[in-house]
Amino acid sequence: MAGGRPDAGDAAVSRLSHFDECGAAVMVDVGAKAPTRRSATASGIVRMRPDVVAALPSNPKGDALQVARIAGIQAAKRTADLIPLCHPLPLTHVDVSAEVGPQGVRITSNVSTLARTGVEMEAMTAVAVAALTVYDMCKALDKGIEIGGIVLLEKRGGKSGRYARE
Amino acid sequence: MAGGRPDAGDAAVSRLSHFDECGAAVMVDVGAKAPTRRSATASGIVRMRPDVVAALPSNPKGDALQVARIAGIQAAKRTADLIPLCHPLPLTHVDVSAEVGPQGVRITSNVSTLARTGVEMEAMTAVAVAALTVYDMCKALDKGIEIGGIVLLEKRGGKSGRYARE
Amino acid sequence: MAGGRPDAGDAAVSRLSHFDECGAAVMVDVGAKAPTRRSATASGIVRMRPDVVAALPSNPKGDALQVARIAGIQAAKRTADLIPLCHPLPLTHVDVSAEVGPQGVRITSNVSTLARTGVEMEAMTAVAVAALTVYDMCKALDKGIEIGGIVLLEKRGGKSGRYARE
Amino acid sequence: MAGGRPDAGDAAVSRLSHFDECGAAVMVDVGAKAPTRRSATASGIVRMRPDVVAALPSNPKGDALQVARIAGIQAAKRTADLIPLCHPLPLTHVDVSAEVGPQGVRITSNVSTLARTGVEMEAMTAVAVAALTVYDMCKALDKGIEIGGIVLLEKRGGKSGRYARE
Amino acid sequence: MAGGRPDAGDAAVSRLSHFDECGAAVMVDVGAKAPTRRSATASGIVRMRPDVVAALPSNPKGDALQVARIAGIQAAKRTADLIPLCHPLPLTHVDVSAEVGPQGVRITSNVSTLARTGVEMEAMTAVAVAALTVYDMCKALDKGIEIGGIVLLEKRGGKSGRYARE
Amino acid sequence: MAGGRPDAGDAAVSRLSHFDECGAAVMVDVGAKAPTRRSATASGIVRMRPDVVAALPSNPKGDALQVARIAGIQAAKRTADLIPLCHPLPLTHVDVSAEVGPQGVRITSNVSTLARTGVEMEAMTAVAVAALTVYDMCKALDKGIEIGGIVLLEKRGGKSGRYARE
Repeated sequence: MAGGRPDAGDAAVSRLSHFDECGAAVMVDVGAKAPTRRSATASGIVRMRPDVVAALPSNPKGDALQVARIAGIQAAKRTADLIPLCHPLPLTHVDVSAEVGPQGVRITSNVSTLARTGVEMEAMTAVAVAALTVYDMCKALDKGIEIGGIVLLEKRGGKSGRYARE
Repeated sequence: MAGGRPDAGDAAVSRLSHFDECGAAVMVDVGAKAPTRRSATASGIVRMRPDVVAALPSNPKGDALQVARIAGIQAAKRTADLIPLCHPLPLTHVDVSAEVGPQGVRITSNVSTLARTGVEMEAMTAVAVAALTVYDMCKALDKGIEIGGIVLLEKRGGKSGRYARE
Repeated sequence: MAGGRPDAGDAAVSRLSHFDECGAAVMVDVGAKAPTRRSATASGIVRMRPDVVAALPSNPKGDALQVARIAGIQAAKRTADLIPLCHPLPLTHVDVSAEVGPQGVRITSNVSTLARTGVEMEAMTAVAVAALTVYDMCKALDKGIEIGGIVLLEKRGGKSGRYARE
Repeated sequence: MAGGRPDAGDAAVSRLSHFDECGAAVMVDVGAKAPTRRSATASGIVRMRPDVVAALPSNPKGDALQVARIAGIQAAKRTADLIPLCHPLPLTHVDVSAEVGPQGVRITSNVSTLARTGVEMEAMTAVAVAALTVYDMCKALDKGIEIGGIVLLEKRGGKSGRYARE
Repeated sequence: MAGGRPDAGDAAVSRLSHFDECGAAVMVDVGAKAPTRRSATASGIVRMRPDVVAALPSNPKGDALQVARIAGIQAAKRTADLIPLCHPLPLTHVDVSAEVGPQGVRITSNVSTLARTGVEMEAMTAVAVAALTVYDMCKALDKGIEIGGIVLLEKRGGKSGRYARE
Repeated sequence: MAGGRPDAGDAAVSRLSHFDECGAAVMVDVGAKAPTRRSATASGIVRMRPDVVAALPSNPKGDALQVARIAGIQAAKRTADLIPLCHPLPLTHVDVSAEVGPQGVRITSNVSTLARTGVEMEAMTAVAVAALTVYDMCKALDKGIEIGGIVLLEKRGGKSGRYARE
């Protein structure tokens, strides 16, 4: 009778590593890869009105930014719990920074591991959750805040080697 | 001796509900509010190259999009665990949709509750995590994918009433 | 272009409350329901060889059974985190018992709440995780152990009222 | 005075690796074992009435089955959090399939790692939670659904080598 | 045959609400209680050498203390996940403060809810986890740090009314 | 403009490994360390009135102590989720004991790993959560219970070698 994985006629599907021959979403098997040193850097921005930027507790207290940093670090460690097809990885380092600029708060994360697969998702997840945390603390002042530009800036290690966003 | 909450000279700080009189980040006390029906809608987009959009398993299989929808629904339920100053809320409904368009995948979430505070963060978190899940499944094809435009589209209920993004 | 929810031609689908008009899996909206007192009882059995049953630390120490009971109680509280379309519910009581019999260990759970939807899944999840815990502690002796017969014995409350398995 | 671990007169207890010399449940110390490639396959069935089987959104949509597959994959990653005496393991692959047959939905999982202990519990947990997820989506139609036959089909690797269920 | 709950001859057991008539640990059934406003305050101290106290980043930066505060707030929300027999509660407020004094860092928490049972455990858990977080950040300088004096200072609400530690 | 990490004038800060050159709390980068065998032992005491000690279900049932032991083992596995700057570690063994004495219940934990950083925090967290669990089960009898004396008794492995508390 019927199965959980429909046929896929689309040849391009096979290029997406998270899909099997039938188009079903799968976790990539990384058991045959050797553990290597890997790192990833991602960033994003929480855009807000200038008056809301000005209302952020100013440096050197930086409290809102510290809460966001901590939330981002913790989220990196929970990536495999949040993103269904991610592997649990033994992270050796997570760093998240949050900087106030004229447009809002820029979040940058850097994550490292020695593992069989990369930490791009951990870096992206850290940025997204740190950004959501900034949003949470500022939303009473500005419901129009936008979280955007979440991208991978660089990755190192693994079979595909270094990638740097232009 | 010293305390955990530095003085804040900035008057604007007091307008940010997540900060106390000293500028320290705090959870807002919602105990005096009455529980009311509240809902929030948020959206965002995962921008990718046209050939990556084309490689997404197409409808009616829609598998990648289903994984993203499920990840978003589960993330909404974990919002208070991810965002440090959020309250745990008894969500009565979470819906996440993912639609493929020419620019990529648009994620939209809708969250409802009967509670003492709103579900804006649950809606935003659902969108962010669903978007990260789409990114995860497509990143092998395109490391330049960008998650952006995560905004609150509408909220209803609570003291501040309805908000709709222009 | 394509959407995340394919068309469903099958009329029977509409009877499954967890699917929308297009056949996509959705969380049921319980916002319009009144909170009422609800309870559910479920059970299951961990079937093992008689010599493995005999090797279980015997009463009154009952240690293996206590570990299983605790694991089941904790799992009930995590149901909404494990089962994607479940609602988070404020459980007022969870009880799990584990009894050694000639065929193995029988697990029974009882869960109560005052909420807008029932606790059948919490009761079923408690039984399943308690049974897995018994399996874990006995698997070194018998890899042929089978977890089976996980059923809802009774539920009370809610629109559909009482149900008792024949 | 009294201790947390009662005396155990039963010699057979020592054969159960999860109990110490006093019969108290303990986590097995795997520090002296070498990490090796290990895998495990488990399965189970969600038995339901033929009309409920027929109401499952049919292939190629297969939505209910996708939700169950994702829930099972995520549960495998949370095994050490659910089963008290399990070790956290760096899973290299998790696959869960769900197939509709005349009796209901058969769930099969396959889990791999390179670690100091096996992944039987991860495979069993994936099956149990995927089965619970199917139950959740069908329970409105049939409260008599039974989850059963959850067994280890095969394991490879480790000191005890290959096991295959007859 | 044997059951999971041994007989208890000890009359005093019945006074411990978390044990049933047989001495087995159980979750208290709070379904018959009315939800009322409840709060609890707890505190504890992380005792360290004066030179380690002096090395803590000083006010107004207070970063170590902010990390501890955030960890304590998040832990309060996870109490039912950590303490097996605790009920999940809809917390309306959690506040954690950390103050540096001559002996070390004093942690104080205050938790509120409107629920059927009290939040003593949430307040105690917030203090313990905030204290562990301070310990983590200082342990490189002083392995002799002691976490102590974790007590309930006050509770309000519920059948037993107000309690204040003398 | 402003940054998330204020300047630190205090030279002593650099000795605290969890703070960067600006005094911001950071996760220590352990990527350059070799994985070695490490263990840690911690203990603490739950002090209660003699009549409450007497009311604890007595040995050999020891139920309250078993619940506490299990909660401590599970907490050790969740340390990186609770303590923001901790690394996720592949624990090879966790043991928690709980012994009733004239002053109350003494908790002792022992945790092992083969990893790039130590397991002091895992041992301390296991003790704290096991102690909170004992408190939870006894608080109905004695609100004056105090959790104290949580210290590291010994650690082995790593660059700094063995430490034993005097």
